[in-house]
Amino acid sequence: MLEHGGRLNEVAREYGIPVENWLDLSTGINSDGWPVPTVPAECWNRLPEEDDGLLEAARAYYGAQPLLAVAGSQAAIQALPRLREPCRVGVFAPAYAEHAHAWSRAGHTLITLDDNAPNIDGCDVVVVVNPNNPTARLWSLAQLQQWHSELATRGGWLVVDEAFLDTGESGLSMLQATGEPGLIVLRSLGKFFGLAGLRVGFVAAWPELLGALQEQLGPWGISHPARWVATQALMDRPWQQQARVRLQQRSERLHRLLGEYGLSPRAGTELFQWVVDEQAPRWQQALAAEAIWVRRFSEPASLRFGLPVDESQWQQLEQALAKIQRERVIHVA
Amino acid sequence: MLEHGGRLNEVAREYGIPVENWLDLSTGINSDGWPVPTVPAECWNRLPEEDDGLLEAARAYYGAQPLLAVAGSQAAIQALPRLREPCRVGVFAPAYAEHAHAWSRAGHTLITLDDNAPNIDGCDVVVVVNPNNPTARLWSLAQLQQWHSELATRGGWLVVDEAFLDTGESGLSMLQATGEPGLIVLRSLGKFFGLAGLRVGFVAAWPELLGALQEQLGPWGISHPARWVATQALMDRPWQQQARVRLQQRSERLHRLLGEYGLSPRAGTELFQWVVDEQAPRWQQALAAEAIWVRRFSEPASLRFGLPVDESQWQQLEQALAKIQRERVIHVA
Repeated sequence: MLEHGGRLNEVAREYGIPVENWLDLSTGINSDGWPVPTVPAECWNRLPEEDDGLLEAARAYYGAQPLLAVAGSQAAIQALPRLREPCRVGVFAPAYAEHAHAWSRAGHTLITLDDNAPNIDGCDVVVVVNPNNPTARLWSLAQLQQWHSELATRGGWLVVDEAFLDTGESGLSMLQATGEPGLIVLRSLGKFFGLAGLRVGFVAAWPELLGALQEQLGPWGISHPARWVATQALMDRPWQQQARVRLQQRSERLHRLLGEYGLSPRAGTELFQWVVDEQAPRWQQALAAEAIWVRRFSEPASLRFGLPVDESQWQQLEQALAKIQRERVIHVA
Repeated sequence: MLEHGGRLNEVAREYGIPVENWLDLSTGINSDGWPVPTVPAECWNRLPEEDDGLLEAARAYYGAQPLLAVAGSQAAIQALPRLREPCRVGVFAPAYAEHAHAWSRAGHTLITLDDNAPNIDGCDVVVVVNPNNPTARLWSLAQLQQWHSELATRGGWLVVDEAFLDTGESGLSMLQATGEPGLIVLRSLGKFFGLAGLRVGFVAAWPELLGALQEQLGPWGISHPARWVATQALMDRPWQQQARVRLQQRSERLHRLLGEYGLSPRAGTELFQWVVDEQAPRWQQALAAEAIWVRRFSEPASLRFGLPVDESQWQQLEQALAKIQRERVIHVA
């Protein structure tokens, strides 16, 4: 299993600080997520049914069809590689590592693409996380369309993981082109909606691919309460509009704050800021000593900061940064 | 996708009767399930973590370890066939059809075993649903142990699906022998606990198998709210004791009632009664005309009746049976 953010129980034990004292900024999940009301009892007791309105709500929200609901985009990430004979799969690095892991495990050959000058000539499949996690790199629609058309010509696939695009402009999404063979777009309710616990995501692609994926995933992959909550969240337009505004404000504030303490982000999305710093391991430890947990990456040495939500969280972060600076725990250039 | 009970939205539309008027007896799920309290908000918002107490609660409840929590036993049913090279797999018929479907889809060769004189000599894997669904057939521990030992000798597996055993005597379960190579036992929170919407089940087996299965299933398969609810339900001993008594009483009452109207069950568990009848299709339709939905099987022609819960449900069933008898809709021998 790969390492991920969010393992707070484990971290709390390791640092000997009670779990409730921590400010967890280790994920790119909106921790001010959609407020879940009481779930009807039958959601717990009865098997979920496919025709419960979830897909209609998703089609309206994403403006795309055909769509398939899956148990988090992770379920699709794991199943897609099983739908092709072993082939050559282009991936970027660093990127959300579960993609490469899943394709490799299913017997495919990985080709690492150059971020600056990607050459996909030798690829049957290309996987793009857009915007990328953690680098926040955003590929243009024109570039993605060119790759799709090139890959589709030779029976290949372009997989675009848009887990972090929910908050952004719709003009950045490849959802509008889905339905054509060779293009697979992944979406998740985990990040923008802050419903990571639900395990609900969507795959937009051409009908034959979705049929094969559905058969591969089998029945009842998504829990019944999750289907009900997801349907309500997708339909709640007022919350979505307010959340977009709040996230943008917080993301800008985080960008400024980190910059003030020598951690200028190289890039960011509306859900996280990415800081490249040789001393990333020391920063992670120093922040953890102040009960703040951030995600660290090795290549390049970098940190990903999720967004604080309320004033007490902003203060905890600012005071920790100030203390690290004051006590010269880390020499900031 | 295979057909299953529980598709009530679809059935309601087909018969033109509003979904809320139906008495759904089409599943073997305890519809008087564990009462779910309000779930903490963080269960929806945060990714689930592995070290949250679910496994400890499950180990205490099942008295078995090692255990792996999975997103319903269905997740294990689909993944297990991917952990072996193509081989010969013995299955019984009729039985819960997802097993045979999953092994066949993964490229294995199915061998249908004779219920009365099963010969497993040619099998590398044998799958037993115990008690069986829908026939309620229960294999003895001695028989299962013999098969396990025979299969294990040649590197084979015995898979015992105990989804319907939660209510029964612990002396009927193979859980006590798990940990030894070659024995895989599946459990589910869907049936006895009536938490089918949750998608939580457990696999008990030897550590290497569980490690490979975990790797195959990937992270976060079970939703966070589901993990929280499952943990509470597994620890609620008073509810479990009361539920066992109630289910036994209802199952006996259903057995008597069906017998009084010419539908003597051939066998049953504490969660359903199984009625073999040439006229099963006509019975299913006649009951549906009274807004009662039962599950029908073709080979042999038979019906599976789940348990009514409250007096109004018992009356709806009895009045429907009386009306069908009175109006001679079906000629009962």
